[in-house]
Amino acid sequence: MEKIPILRMGPFLLVTIQVDLYDRLALTLESDLVQMVNKTGARGVLIDISAVAIVDSFMGRIIGNIASMSKILDAETVVVGMQPAVAITLIELGLPLKGVYTALNVERGMDLLKLKIQGSADHEEEEDDEDSAIYSE
Amino acid sequence: MEKIPILRMGPFLLVTIQVDLYDRLALTLESDLVQMVNKTGARGVLIDISAVAIVDSFMGRIIGNIASMSKILDAETVVVGMQPAVAITLIELGLPLKGVYTALNVERGMDLLKLKIQGSADHEEEEDDEDSAIYSE
Repeated sequence: MEKIPILRMGPFLLVTIQVDLYDRLALTLESDLVQMVNKTGARGVLIDISAVAIVDSFMGRIIGNIASMSKILDAETVVVGMQPAVAITLIELGLPLKGVYTALNVERGMDLLKLKIQGSADHEEEEDDEDSAIYSE
Repeated sequence: MEKIPILRMGPFLLVTIQVDLYDRLALTLESDLVQMVNKTGARGVLIDISAVAIVDSFMGRIIGNIASMSKILDAETVVVGMQPAVAITLIELGLPLKGVYTALNVERGMDLLKLKIQGSADHEEEEDDEDSAIYSE
């Protein structure tokens, strides 16, 4: 099987990584995911890596790339289900996954995404209020 | 990677099948899933097979087994994301997936499960009402 399925759940996309992300598969996932964010207008991407036992710098970079690409398209990325050994390896490799949110499991990740979306919506509203205040003077 | 991760999403469990379900992996999935239903008290199981391009009678049987086992533990099973070619093959193999609910995608599958749970809750309430009516006579 050559593609990692991307599941749409309301305003979020969910990806479960179960196989080793070799070069071509990772690049396909990157482009599929970005296209899917664009097509569905998703506000968040959840990447479940609970089945990933071994991580290398390539995988760390791919996750970082997905997060950066999604961010530009106005979607936050949360990595969930990381095994303790993977966390240890990432830090020892010097890859602290900057710019990527993490959560213990999918449920908490979804809660985090909801908060983020809520937060950004509130922020936009505040900005709108300021604008209208200026215009009304 | 030797295990298919089972994700908990509220009252439901979600499994994405991305790899070929050979014997041992399928049996591990069966037992993991049933234990997870038991442990979490899940009311529904969603099996996403959108990445499955080839299906055989073994896989059809495994899905049927999971549905039957979950049913005994009071959880409904919905298979989602089936590719048209897989549907054709299943029918031609004489495996119409009896007792398994299906839906086009995860979102619709989740809606279906919610309806099923709602339906059974209403039914239980009605039964309770009847009981109380009898007792009050």
